[in-house]
Amino acid sequence: MNKEQKNEKQISSAVIRRLPRYFRYLRELIRNNIMRISSKDLAERMNVTASLIRQDLNCFGGFGQQGYGYNVKYLYNEISNILGVDKNFSAIIIGMGNLGRALANNPLFEKRNVKIKGLFDVSPNVIGNKVGDLTVMDMNDVSTFCRDNKIDIAVLTLPKLEAPSAAKLLAKAGVRGFWNFSNMELELPEYDVKIENIHLGDTLMTLCYELAKEDNRASEDKE
Amino acid sequence: MNKEQKNEKQISSAVIRRLPRYFRYLRELIRNNIMRISSKDLAERMNVTASLIRQDLNCFGGFGQQGYGYNVKYLYNEISNILGVDKNFSAIIIGMGNLGRALANNPLFEKRNVKIKGLFDVSPNVIGNKVGDLTVMDMNDVSTFCRDNKIDIAVLTLPKLEAPSAAKLLAKAGVRGFWNFSNMELELPEYDVKIENIHLGDTLMTLCYELAKEDNRASEDKE
Repeated sequence: MNKEQKNEKQISSAVIRRLPRYFRYLRELIRNNIMRISSKDLAERMNVTASLIRQDLNCFGGFGQQGYGYNVKYLYNEISNILGVDKNFSAIIIGMGNLGRALANNPLFEKRNVKIKGLFDVSPNVIGNKVGDLTVMDMNDVSTFCRDNKIDIAVLTLPKLEAPSAAKLLAKAGVRGFWNFSNMELELPEYDVKIENIHLGDTLMTLCYELAKEDNRASEDKE
Repeated sequence: MNKEQKNEKQISSAVIRRLPRYFRYLRELIRNNIMRISSKDLAERMNVTASLIRQDLNCFGGFGQQGYGYNVKYLYNEISNILGVDKNFSAIIIGMGNLGRALANNPLFEKRNVKIKGLFDVSPNVIGNKVGDLTVMDMNDVSTFCRDNKIDIAVLTLPKLEAPSAAKLLAKAGVRGFWNFSNMELELPEYDVKIENIHLGDTLMTLCYELAKEDNRASEDKE
């Protein structure tokens, strides 16, 4: 397969959503010095079927060899490249409340090769404070900073109502991706940007659904 | 439909995963005093197809009326009940690092009627500190606390390697649900518990994937 064919090949969004999980498991295998693995063993660790794994990994040329299994490092590198880990994306965090600070200090960025280059807030009480190695900057300076530093991604942890105007400002300054925790589902159709709207509460609710279903069953059994 | 039939009816997990989003949109409609809405209008707001909405809402008897649309409050109440909002679940947070503190102060619990009743940590520097209205308690007291207060849910923001043993301890003390941010995929097959493993970094990676795909396209166009 030449480069173009490989890149052109469409990977379904369901597979893409599963790739970060493969990335985590393969990373862990490498850390434990496991350099090859069968689809069956990987399936057991990941609690999915071996056929799903073969299907998913075949999508981008990750063909296991009979009697040998997958080359873990090769797969890890392929998946890393597909997920843009080799791109060294740069990011800023907007909003230095509790969640902003929690993310600023979180190793998840470094693990995925995303470099946090700046932290911003509007509050004079927060601007100038140190969070980890960085000093919180004034939101008034964000456009210039993004242009000068070619910022790819903005992590939004600012209040809901401030999110749309901030996002537009950032998109104009060249930010191309939004990891949005503002609880406002952003849409910026007029800009060529990608948005991941995160609603932490949604997964809490699916957990509550499971518990409620059990409770309902238990109370029916009693009736 | 009698109660039993209604509860027995299986709702697919894909629909369940979408319900929290309906919950948020319906909540917003009520806040804006919009008490009825057509599937078409709701579809436009939610950026999905009207037929998906009709399909999803029909699953639990949310039938819109021709020329009237959906009764927003009725739907909101139905979805809230399915998601267990009426159950008044109680929760504790384990691990008072940055993320634990961010969650402790987050209104997402209150909005979903989940009551945070206790905060726990192992560090003597943190135990006794106030976070919001609560005082951080000693992890040594967690089992007694869970039994005495019938805690339903534990939010885990403690380090990865401490997660499995803490979760087992909590399951033994009657905790039935785990909202797990420890970056360790928990499995507790020996206990009858529900687990939501949250990996914040996964959605950052899908965002990076989208950006990388664009970059690759742009560089191919140049070639």
